[in-house]
Amino acid sequence: NFVVMNFTANALLAFGASPVMAHAPEEVEEMVSFAGALVLNIGTLTHSWVDAMLMAGKKANELGIPIVLDPVGAGATAFRTASAMKLMDALSINVVRGNASEVLSLAGKDSQTKGVDAVHRVDEAEEAAVALSRKLDATLAITGPVDLVTDGKRVLRVFNGHERMGQVTGTGCTATALIGAFLAVDGDSLEATATALAAYGLAGEDAALESKGPGSFHPALLDALFNLDTEQLVKKIRIKS
Amino acid sequence: NFVVMNFTANALLAFGASPVMAHAPEEVEEMVSFAGALVLNIGTLTHSWVDAMLMAGKKANELGIPIVLDPVGAGATAFRTASAMKLMDALSINVVRGNASEVLSLAGKDSQTKGVDAVHRVDEAEEAAVALSRKLDATLAITGPVDLVTDGKRVLRVFNGHERMGQVTGTGCTATALIGAFLAVDGDSLEATATALAAYGLAGEDAALESKGPGSFHPALLDALFNLDTEQLVKKIRIKS
Amino acid sequence: NFVVMNFTANALLAFGASPVMAHAPEEVEEMVSFAGALVLNIGTLTHSWVDAMLMAGKKANELGIPIVLDPVGAGATAFRTASAMKLMDALSINVVRGNASEVLSLAGKDSQTKGVDAVHRVDEAEEAAVALSRKLDATLAITGPVDLVTDGKRVLRVFNGHERMGQVTGTGCTATALIGAFLAVDGDSLEATATALAAYGLAGEDAALESKGPGSFHPALLDALFNLDTEQLVKKIRIKS
Repeated sequence: NFVVMNFTANALLAFGASPVMAHAPEEVEEMVSFAGALVLNIGTLTHSWVDAMLMAGKKANELGIPIVLDPVGAGATAFRTASAMKLMDALSINVVRGNASEVLSLAGKDSQTKGVDAVHRVDEAEEAAVALSRKLDATLAITGPVDLVTDGKRVLRVFNGHERMGQVTGTGCTATALIGAFLAVDGDSLEATATALAAYGLAGEDAALESKGPGSFHPALLDALFNLDTEQLVKKIRIKS
Repeated sequence: NFVVMNFTANALLAFGASPVMAHAPEEVEEMVSFAGALVLNIGTLTHSWVDAMLMAGKKANELGIPIVLDPVGAGATAFRTASAMKLMDALSINVVRGNASEVLSLAGKDSQTKGVDAVHRVDEAEEAAVALSRKLDATLAITGPVDLVTDGKRVLRVFNGHERMGQVTGTGCTATALIGAFLAVDGDSLEATATALAAYGLAGEDAALESKGPGSFHPALLDALFNLDTEQLVKKIRIKS
Repeated sequence: NFVVMNFTANALLAFGASPVMAHAPEEVEEMVSFAGALVLNIGTLTHSWVDAMLMAGKKANELGIPIVLDPVGAGATAFRTASAMKLMDALSINVVRGNASEVLSLAGKDSQTKGVDAVHRVDEAEEAAVALSRKLDATLAITGPVDLVTDGKRVLRVFNGHERMGQVTGTGCTATALIGAFLAVDGDSLEATATALAAYGLAGEDAALESKGPGSFHPALLDALFNLDTEQLVKKIRIKS
């Protein structure tokens, strides 16, 4: 996703991960082979990128490397919805993270996402998330003021976060990328996803205190991700089932 | 435009608009159908992107959705000039925003833009802007130390702004994107364009006070766009005819 | 390189250079013809981009315009290594800048770069850099905690810099871009490269004092590049042979 590549790469670096962005069919299989996780993001999509995602995804499945899908703008155009569906059909995906409108559209509900911004509340998509989770045998995460994470059986809610996160482009995509980083080290997808979103939300809370608007919030968020410590995480994470 | 997508998206969000970037032929028509305005930017151009712009533009014309064109680097290479010309010929465009060198080249003057930076003063391109405006039946905007906006009959000058805006990449492209946001809610292209440039310039003035260089100016500009209020706009906007 | 285009463009602008990013086969030859230097970066690579780089590079060679190559991720995938080799074979390149793992892989050593981050120390690649420098008749630069620059005869070490530069994506690519800006005005490749890296490292030292993490370091680095003055450069640059 061209719009947010720099942000997601920096967030991953700030968090101690080692991001690589690649999309050439000549190299995606080799590149994924030494990755801890594969993140597929369908923002700024084209046909050839979907093909490269399928190649990378199949290799990841073969090697047991976890996959996270960000269905950016699913529901906004038939092409985006179909592309996300194609990836979900062809690949075994561990986590899907989207906003409420995107998740509704993936569950076959007649949703409209108005581009890449949600027009539905998280709770409206809970049922769809649980159903989709069961169908895909995957963890589903809906982000919003309160995030919802489900593996089809349990439903967790993540209360960390700040409204400013919705005022910067790519904060959703970055959430997805961080979930990938957590999945690389934690085999429990539900737990890894909820913890990633809580840690990210906590960084957002810290960053909001340092910023005067969405411009200064962006570097402050990267600083906060970099400076998060375990003690703070343990004390301040708010995940409820 | 790969270089500036993140900046323009964040500026639009900061201003309260809802940006979507898309370029796949499979989806541009559908994506434009629910947009308030379509912004075409020929930076980091390829042949297939021009085709996608034509598709999106024709759909926008069909639906009465306003179009803004940013002819990045027109005059620098024959390919850029020809691509901008092709878009202007095939589409009914509401506003064209460029620097003086770009506007001169679009008017058929033997200009040279030395890449994407202007080598001409705004005033040198006034005549070309008025002529092009009449030919295209469009509003023409030339940005620089003092911006010039014309619909072929009236000429407005916008005095808001700060020299630091020329030291950050994408400030011109972001001006174009903001014009799109104003056009989405104001049917008078001349007024919408001048007001957008004045508001943006005002944000630039605020941001300059908060910054030590172009690096800190960038987030400060987004903060200032976010924090602009109507009262401030009414008092401090400097547009003269 | 999509991930870092905005950063490199802003760094060049902050330093007083005039960057243009282009990749369309229709225009790269014309665009390079008025450039002071050509920078080729193989991050986020595809086959068609390599072709465009070859076209631009051949034109640059024909016109005597210096070329800098950044072999991002060489060694990580066969495609990246082969693409970098192809460019080095077909073009007369003035400077190659990479991390230790990338340089080792270009010298035919069985290196592994784990994506785009180095897994080797600078000193481990010194011999490879000198050999490659002689083979290509080019200046080789390896960046790391202490940078190494060699023209195959002399070896310079640049001690300026700060560890925070390794925590932000694109700082290596930006180093390469700045080398291009120095080459545009200094015909001595060894000197231009070492000076560029020293000035950049100095800006990094200044920026580290202003920042709380990698997020705030990024704008601070651009500010520092913008605010560097000659007196400071002369006093604080630490280059040793």
